[in-house]
Amino acid sequence: MRLLQPENVVDIALGAAVLGTGGGGDPYIGKLMGIQAINEFGPVTLLSLDEIDDDALIVPTAMMGAPTVMVEKLPKGDEIIKAFHALESYLGQEITATMSAEAGGLNSVTPLTVAARLRIPMVDCDGMGRAFPELQMVTATLYGISSTPFAIGDEKGNSAILNTINNRWTETFSRSITVDMGCAAMIACYATTGKELKEWAVPDTMTLVEDIGRTIREAQRSKANVVEAVRKAVGGFEVFKGKIVDVRRRTEKGFARGEAIMEGVDDYDSKTLELNFQNENLVAIEDGEIVVSVPDLITVLETETGEPITTENLRYGFRVTVLGIPCHEKWRTPEGLALVGPRYFGYDVDWVPVEERYGQ
Amino acid sequence: MRLLQPENVVDIALGAAVLGTGGGGDPYIGKLMGIQAINEFGPVTLLSLDEIDDDALIVPTAMMGAPTVMVEKLPKGDEIIKAFHALESYLGQEITATMSAEAGGLNSVTPLTVAARLRIPMVDCDGMGRAFPELQMVTATLYGISSTPFAIGDEKGNSAILNTINNRWTETFSRSITVDMGCAAMIACYATTGKELKEWAVPDTMTLVEDIGRTIREAQRSKANVVEAVRKAVGGFEVFKGKIVDVRRRTEKGFARGEAIMEGVDDYDSKTLELNFQNENLVAIEDGEIVVSVPDLITVLETETGEPITTENLRYGFRVTVLGIPCHEKWRTPEGLALVGPRYFGYDVDWVPVEERYGQ
Repeated sequence: MRLLQPENVVDIALGAAVLGTGGGGDPYIGKLMGIQAINEFGPVTLLSLDEIDDDALIVPTAMMGAPTVMVEKLPKGDEIIKAFHALESYLGQEITATMSAEAGGLNSVTPLTVAARLRIPMVDCDGMGRAFPELQMVTATLYGISSTPFAIGDEKGNSAILNTINNRWTETFSRSITVDMGCAAMIACYATTGKELKEWAVPDTMTLVEDIGRTIREAQRSKANVVEAVRKAVGGFEVFKGKIVDVRRRTEKGFARGEAIMEGVDDYDSKTLELNFQNENLVAIEDGEIVVSVPDLITVLETETGEPITTENLRYGFRVTVLGIPCHEKWRTPEGLALVGPRYFGYDVDWVPVEERYGQ
Repeated sequence: MRLLQPENVVDIALGAAVLGTGGGGDPYIGKLMGIQAINEFGPVTLLSLDEIDDDALIVPTAMMGAPTVMVEKLPKGDEIIKAFHALESYLGQEITATMSAEAGGLNSVTPLTVAARLRIPMVDCDGMGRAFPELQMVTATLYGISSTPFAIGDEKGNSAILNTINNRWTETFSRSITVDMGCAAMIACYATTGKELKEWAVPDTMTLVEDIGRTIREAQRSKANVVEAVRKAVGGFEVFKGKIVDVRRRTEKGFARGEAIMEGVDDYDSKTLELNFQNENLVAIEDGEIVVSVPDLITVLETETGEPITTENLRYGFRVTVLGIPCHEKWRTPEGLALVGPRYFGYDVDWVPVEERYGQ
């Protein structure tokens, strides 16, 4: 158990952008949101998984929508509170704690703002070990945990509770509602007992993102090679180094989709790499061949500063280094790959573990 | 108080297609659904408004979606039951009775099937005195009654409860969910006390549609002029008589939209009439001029049989008579016209009462 203070939020928001693999929104916004919540409501208690009672009731909270919109349409803060209480009365049990559905981007910090406001603790874990674009893409789904009752709320005061026959249907309905709400909404779902959570969660990921953020900050201060420091901290591999020469993006069915093209420099001279993203980076294609794919992580860092760049901040002319990072082992099963592997996203290739291609 | 038996349903379903003004789905389907429910669960008690206690809790039920889809994707019957019970526990009070949200098309019969299954009475009234395409278009909205908590369910077992800041938002969210559910869903909304209901409801409309249906049936049997008998029963006016020469239709954003063109015969020789519909008939345009518009009713009858024709059954070659019927007085206020008048639907004209143009 430890208390999260504003200085922790600074590192968490920064590190979360690395595991966000391009998605989840600008960490700067997350930092401001988290610091404001703690300043207003006090520090947040972070509990490790083994400090959670088996019969505790944990409800993950998150923002849902297109990151391009989220960073311009900030949550007021109370969107989720009403929905959270509605969920509580629906479940007929007090909610013990909240947690991150995804350890990437804004959604590492979103539950922290909820925890601060409701004065409940946050659990040091998440349901992805990264960020993914769709709601059913959590390890909870692999363990048969229902996403419903599912609460969603907007800044205008509208809210809904869904009950569905599977988590894919929750994604469908909640995505439509999110689009109607203006492409950004607050959600609470995957209510789970402490006993269940210990089985399905990816543990210690809040601490991991904070460590990554601290690594970046300290490497920058000591003028070290930041990209290399991040690569080591996450156990990843250098996939490409180059310059962004084209970015195409569109907001489609509630997602930020697009492609970024980069031309190689140094060892990658005369090569090109294309990233395809749906909120998060999905695949990296080098000279026509998919070289890294979901569920492994594809993270773009600014070569000089080592700062992670989210997909909505990709711009012509940026000098970038692309890292491939092995995903959590829970995704490396046939069920995991069916849920979040390249074929789900329409790429007709088998997943090849990033370390097999780059781990020599 | 009286009991609705299968023979009542036959007339109700037929008459409902007249007030349905082209929308609300095929009355044949409604008849089958209603008769089956009564055969299976017993007759339904119909209460008049003055038999309702002031503190009773009444919840209208309906099908939502595109009629073109509804008639091919019939409700299983239990879609709404779960959602109805969820609503009951949400409201913390037993629901006394149900009623029609709209006295047109399938939705005159839908609540009857709910009443039969739940063995609760149905109230002899509705929220439109006709059918309208959108959810907020009920007299309840004019009296400040909220559509939420709003329950929606599909035949697969998915359901949702919405809470919104106004009834237009409920329309937005529930329309998206309906589209996701396959363009047809069951809903329960506008929970209201008996006291409130007596203020906002359009009274006696179940009895009215039954009377209209009986009029058609008896006129057909006695080989009378059925169209003229219907016209008298509803206090309407003959607007056009002709032959359908073109029908364009599309399912768009969850609605059945389109236009039907007819060429005049007899007194209307060399004239053309165009009907525009969004589930229901919205405006009738004669030689370029809007001659009847919402909120007044535009109903198409087959000239020979006097049977009402719903928009999805309009076909090239049909000989039809178009009636204009004055809407209920509750719509004839500035607030009523703002909610359902021609300008709301994008027609830049003032509403002219149908009796002003045709009542000489």
